[in-house]
Amino acid sequence: MPVLVMKFGGTSVANLDRIRRAAKRVGVEVAKGYDVIVIVSAMSGKTNELVGWVEETSPLFDAREYDAVVSSGENVTAGLMALTLQEMDVPARSWQGWQVPVKTTSAHSSARIEEIPTDNIKAKFDQGMRVAVVAGFQGISPEGRITTLGRGGSDTTAVAFAAAFGAERCDIYTDVDGVYTTDPRITDKARKLDRIAFEEMLELASLGAKVLQTRSVELAMRYKVKLRVLSSFEEQSDTAGTLVCDEDDIMESNVVAGVAHSRDEAKMTLLSVADRPGIAATIFTALSDAGVNVDMIVQNISEEGRTDMTFSCPTDQVARAEKALADIKAKGGLNFAELIADKNVAKVSVVGIGMRSHTGVAAKMFKVLSGEGINIKVITTSEIKISVLIDRKYMELAVQALHDAFELDKAA
Amino acid sequence: MPVLVMKFGGTSVANLDRIRRAAKRVGVEVAKGYDVIVIVSAMSGKTNELVGWVEETSPLFDAREYDAVVSSGENVTAGLMALTLQEMDVPARSWQGWQVPVKTTSAHSSARIEEIPTDNIKAKFDQGMRVAVVAGFQGISPEGRITTLGRGGSDTTAVAFAAAFGAERCDIYTDVDGVYTTDPRITDKARKLDRIAFEEMLELASLGAKVLQTRSVELAMRYKVKLRVLSSFEEQSDTAGTLVCDEDDIMESNVVAGVAHSRDEAKMTLLSVADRPGIAATIFTALSDAGVNVDMIVQNISEEGRTDMTFSCPTDQVARAEKALADIKAKGGLNFAELIADKNVAKVSVVGIGMRSHTGVAAKMFKVLSGEGINIKVITTSEIKISVLIDRKYMELAVQALHDAFELDKAA
Repeated sequence: MPVLVMKFGGTSVANLDRIRRAAKRVGVEVAKGYDVIVIVSAMSGKTNELVGWVEETSPLFDAREYDAVVSSGENVTAGLMALTLQEMDVPARSWQGWQVPVKTTSAHSSARIEEIPTDNIKAKFDQGMRVAVVAGFQGISPEGRITTLGRGGSDTTAVAFAAAFGAERCDIYTDVDGVYTTDPRITDKARKLDRIAFEEMLELASLGAKVLQTRSVELAMRYKVKLRVLSSFEEQSDTAGTLVCDEDDIMESNVVAGVAHSRDEAKMTLLSVADRPGIAATIFTALSDAGVNVDMIVQNISEEGRTDMTFSCPTDQVARAEKALADIKAKGGLNFAELIADKNVAKVSVVGIGMRSHTGVAAKMFKVLSGEGINIKVITTSEIKISVLIDRKYMELAVQALHDAFELDKAA
Repeated sequence: MPVLVMKFGGTSVANLDRIRRAAKRVGVEVAKGYDVIVIVSAMSGKTNELVGWVEETSPLFDAREYDAVVSSGENVTAGLMALTLQEMDVPARSWQGWQVPVKTTSAHSSARIEEIPTDNIKAKFDQGMRVAVVAGFQGISPEGRITTLGRGGSDTTAVAFAAAFGAERCDIYTDVDGVYTTDPRITDKARKLDRIAFEEMLELASLGAKVLQTRSVELAMRYKVKLRVLSSFEEQSDTAGTLVCDEDDIMESNVVAGVAHSRDEAKMTLLSVADRPGIAATIFTALSDAGVNVDMIVQNISEEGRTDMTFSCPTDQVARAEKALADIKAKGGLNFAELIADKNVAKVSVVGIGMRSHTGVAAKMFKVLSGEGINIKVITTSEIKISVLIDRKYMELAVQALHDAFELDKAA
């Protein structure tokens, strides 16, 4: 029988009623003839409670013990989901990560899945079991200890199972009903996308759209797993939500798929840096060692052997960046006049695989922003994305204007 | 290094503060030179919460899923305890039942431990680890699924580890400071025993003293594991609590070790039963099939082919017993005039291995009760125990009078 993977996030299994609602959706797919692998998260709030206990017990905790404690939330949901399905006369059983076993690396708290043997679960399907409920987010290391995959890891578990079992589709049930052209809180013209390409989803996920864990999208792209994002709180239908798929599976699409934004960016400018070979390496090695996630980087034209260097980073890493650069200046490793941190900025991006074949997207974007009197502070581009840093107060205006200009409220 | 097993019950690990307090006690034993195996229960209340969810989800639950869900509480405590010890610079790690592995039967929810391989943990001790924290109450079946040992099962886990590792002692930390000559709520002359024999503890446990799970005492007796019951809320000392040990390790002891009582007994009398061979088998097979735990049984002298049959059972099983006997009477399998249930009784017992060699204990007991004007309704005896059923209103009086008469307030 064809296999379907269905993943339910924390809000979709927050209590026994919701677990029952999720189980009913599983029952519908079983009735259609699918063997279903259900991946569950912990009931919402449970993982935070466990993490809180660990951090209070031991601020610099042993990640192996952290994983052993924190993985228990998913085990509870898995058992309860299996029991709920059995009550509905659907043959089901639960698997914890180590029982499958979901083999991972030993990088505790951020382990990567290396292999998922399918024989164990397939044998049960062959014996008439219709649903395997698997605790998400967890696995087992080569040393036989429990590992976890990092926040949002259950998405990755789901995609990995879909790849291993050659599932027809991987449905991610969450509390939003799909992927939108932009944040619906900023413009009511935001439109739910029926389909979006893996690459676009990847850019949107890394730009802060919290629908899917970035790693799960990478994995889906690599193994060509059809991913569907949909809400567990809406009517069930075959066309609900957004299908994240290969670009070849999208017949028509707008040049721009969506407009993303991020409020949590700061613009950092190093004034009058001595411009000599290796200076950029010095700066960004120091920042990387200090755990600062640098996003955009711009270097101005050099004048009289000195230049200005600008970069962006998350606002909550500004203090860390300042300390790292002051330290290296004090040690004589870097010569600059001043470091200016501007937390009053925002990043706005347009994303679309159509940019590869359509020119003029950047020009149009800049023209739209200038038409609204918005000054662009920094620009970066990738093959399918253009991002700009602007004054934060213009962020909503910029998103609305770009959404209108690229006619994202209309389907292709 | 010598091995010590320390078990902490739910109230002793109820929150992070108490876990820290328990960890400090472990640290003291490590400093003395012991390699310590710590067995932990779930934080108090957690198991009830999990059981509640399972029962609400599925009243006739699949015990395999019940075990998978309910065992998660102990895993959380085990990880937190290991982290707490690490914070105190005590090398420690946690083990879940399947990781040891604690091999059990497949009797889910009431599994028995069959084998505990020691090589895994011993290797870690050899490498310098000082504390192995093991989640109690759980194991793994031959099919690779999680099992649990039934309520109070962590006591059994602790004794089984002590037996497997040849531990010097197994300390059971709980919320009472030891085993008493009788219930201190009934007489303030109740005295904490320094030592008690396994057989006596077994009788007291099965008579309702809730200090230790009966099965754990059986196991300790079989493998000669020295068990110590002590409070995690009192000062730590080598002589705290009560040592449950082989009778050979008790130099001097009173003839009677303790007086036990149970309020939850009902006296059931079948009037005018046709007295023929096999009639007792008919009655007690029917009661056993109905899940009635019959305790005392008395058959009066037969007159004219008919007799009266009296037995006792827990008060909450009276309705079940009545139905079972009415059913069998209706089917013609049993002929009796009437069934009288008297819930207004209590059981009082004196227990002591000294009875084996001292005669006259029964005579003294009956004389004391008669001196107080207390009528005895039913009597049963074992080698080291005499139990009587009396009117409930005399229960406290009987306990106090017997405690005085056998001078239990004075050590041997």
